[in-house]
Amino acid sequence: MMKFNYNLPVNLLFGRGRSNEIGIEVAKYGTKALIVTGRSSTKKSGLLDKVISLLEESNVGYEIFDKVEQNPLTTTVYEGVDIIKETGCDVVLGLGGGSIMDAAKSIAFSAKNPGDISEYIFGIKQGGKALPIILVPTTCGTGSEGNCFSVLTNPETKDKKSLRTNVIIAKASIIDPELMTTIPKHILASVGFDALAHNMEAYVSKIGQPLTDMKALYGIKLLAQNLPKIYNDPTDLEGWEKVTLASTLGGMVIGVAGVTAPHGMEHPASGLHDIVHGKGLAALTPVIVENSWQSDVEKYNDISRLLGGSCAQDCADAIRNLLSKIDLKVTLGELGVQEKDVDWMAENCMKVSKPSITNHPKEFTLEEIKDIYYKSL
Amino acid sequence: MMKFNYNLPVNLLFGRGRSNEIGIEVAKYGTKALIVTGRSSTKKSGLLDKVISLLEESNVGYEIFDKVEQNPLTTTVYEGVDIIKETGCDVVLGLGGGSIMDAAKSIAFSAKNPGDISEYIFGIKQGGKALPIILVPTTCGTGSEGNCFSVLTNPETKDKKSLRTNVIIAKASIIDPELMTTIPKHILASVGFDALAHNMEAYVSKIGQPLTDMKALYGIKLLAQNLPKIYNDPTDLEGWEKVTLASTLGGMVIGVAGVTAPHGMEHPASGLHDIVHGKGLAALTPVIVENSWQSDVEKYNDISRLLGGSCAQDCADAIRNLLSKIDLKVTLGELGVQEKDVDWMAENCMKVSKPSITNHPKEFTLEEIKDIYYKSL
Repeated sequence: MMKFNYNLPVNLLFGRGRSNEIGIEVAKYGTKALIVTGRSSTKKSGLLDKVISLLEESNVGYEIFDKVEQNPLTTTVYEGVDIIKETGCDVVLGLGGGSIMDAAKSIAFSAKNPGDISEYIFGIKQGGKALPIILVPTTCGTGSEGNCFSVLTNPETKDKKSLRTNVIIAKASIIDPELMTTIPKHILASVGFDALAHNMEAYVSKIGQPLTDMKALYGIKLLAQNLPKIYNDPTDLEGWEKVTLASTLGGMVIGVAGVTAPHGMEHPASGLHDIVHGKGLAALTPVIVENSWQSDVEKYNDISRLLGGSCAQDCADAIRNLLSKIDLKVTLGELGVQEKDVDWMAENCMKVSKPSITNHPKEFTLEEIKDIYYKSL
Repeated sequence: MMKFNYNLPVNLLFGRGRSNEIGIEVAKYGTKALIVTGRSSTKKSGLLDKVISLLEESNVGYEIFDKVEQNPLTTTVYEGVDIIKETGCDVVLGLGGGSIMDAAKSIAFSAKNPGDISEYIFGIKQGGKALPIILVPTTCGTGSEGNCFSVLTNPETKDKKSLRTNVIIAKASIIDPELMTTIPKHILASVGFDALAHNMEAYVSKIGQPLTDMKALYGIKLLAQNLPKIYNDPTDLEGWEKVTLASTLGGMVIGVAGVTAPHGMEHPASGLHDIVHGKGLAALTPVIVENSWQSDVEKYNDISRLLGGSCAQDCADAIRNLLSKIDLKVTLGELGVQEKDVDWMAENCMKVSKPSITNHPKEFTLEEIKDIYYKSL
């Protein structure tokens, strides 16, 4: 029986060169923008200077906030909000990768919803509005430009968990594949695998539905064909377009269907050790698939075939094969996780990532989660 | 090169029995609803009484407007607006087929945008807001619950054309396949073919894009497999679910990618003779495909194969074959169109439906359009 809710009011402006429209778009929603961006990459690439010119051409004022870390902290969000309050910014422009976009979304939210953001993350309080948000991704992985999530880490508790509310969906996401083409190879591998993980997890999710299934399958297909291609030949612009689109699709599908065990189990690891998210996923995903493909043979069959495998049973190997092609075969041990971390990670996973664990085709017990962490070391 | 805009903020609540949530949903957006519904079918079926009870349970007041005709007139919209102004309704609930939903959307729009609605339809004026709209389809054809269109006919000029603005996208569309199962066979055939036409036209549209292509192909597949099935066995509830979903998908894809020549050419015919829309499409579509498949062989290949054909060249026959299965093979002549109407229809088509003609893979000239009308008589 078919039953679902679908509500994802994204506004995507996709295509090479579309970043030239940033000024025009921001001007539709505000008069002074808080530009949330990384510490260095948009400065080095010249993108930040270009954006400032575009804003000036459209008579939009701006402030710059460039203090966001790899796994953005709740405390960093408050720093951004302070600048908004001091300077009167009325629109937030996120310019960067997933961490930047997630921070921009939470800053826009916290500017309108005072108090401890963790209370909104854990559903203790509900927030009904946010400053308007414009997102411009510069990496093709997180898909944050296509959904209502903002993943934050609480530095006190180490909890890494999403704020999830439709009010932080971007008013416009300007997705310009040309902005991605300077991503260093090793980063492309990890963000690209994150995008693949999103599509695979939403596809097997218990709350998947026709509108997410079709996007997820298309995303997996695009990534299987094009991620290794652009990894080896970064001049392949059409390949970049396809990987970029697949990344946004991945963001859209998890926005509706959620993530499953790989993301659920990766968050405690990277919350604890500041691991690169895509590497954590690369270490965990094949082991998780090995331990759960029997719970949804049909869907793991589909994934395996799109990745060049033959059936659900060899899906984990098909994933490993793809990881080899992009030099991303890695273990949690190599990423700094130790045996003594396993108990905390498994318990944190059950506390923070319970919905993702429940969404997985096979609902792992605490003991099974520990076992998978051990196997992934 | 991939370039597109995608902005379709639909909120779908899909599934059998979901119509029980009408009261709860309406109450989220207003305190007094204008129920726009048909002259008899929701009364006979008991749906209107049920909806009134649901509204009362949720403490929502209501007024009923049941004067909408098969091809809703601009003047009918003003009658609905008058009731809103007299009674203070603050939310519009459309309960019925495509005509009803389209009228509900335009009433909600005109209540906030005074003056001649034709000026908004022809882009002379822009409207920025509308009363909140809740849509509950009772037929599976138009897909109006999934897009920003409202097709109206101006009784003075006979122009049949869409109001098109995102402010008339429903705040919530409650899509309950169980509401469809009492549709008489001959109506199912025509509305179901309309849904198929939407998906086929959006797929071949020049402004199609990945996010519409994947939905359109899925919609075509669902209809090819299930429309003849439920036409012959209305007890097949899973078939109804799939046809209903395909209908909403059809509405969504035309909302972004637009329609092409079949809809563009059908509007003048049904504007002039009050023809059943799906029948007009059934008369025109195969002839149009015969005269244009060579302009996009790849896409007509895909459609033909999903319909049981083998290639683009036999796509028109594959469509005729499907039409036979649902007893919908018909000519414009049988629908009351005469040779002497052709010149007016062709000229009206160029005036009113220019964007749909431009969207078609082969852009027909005035003479070619006349020729297709003659061949369809």
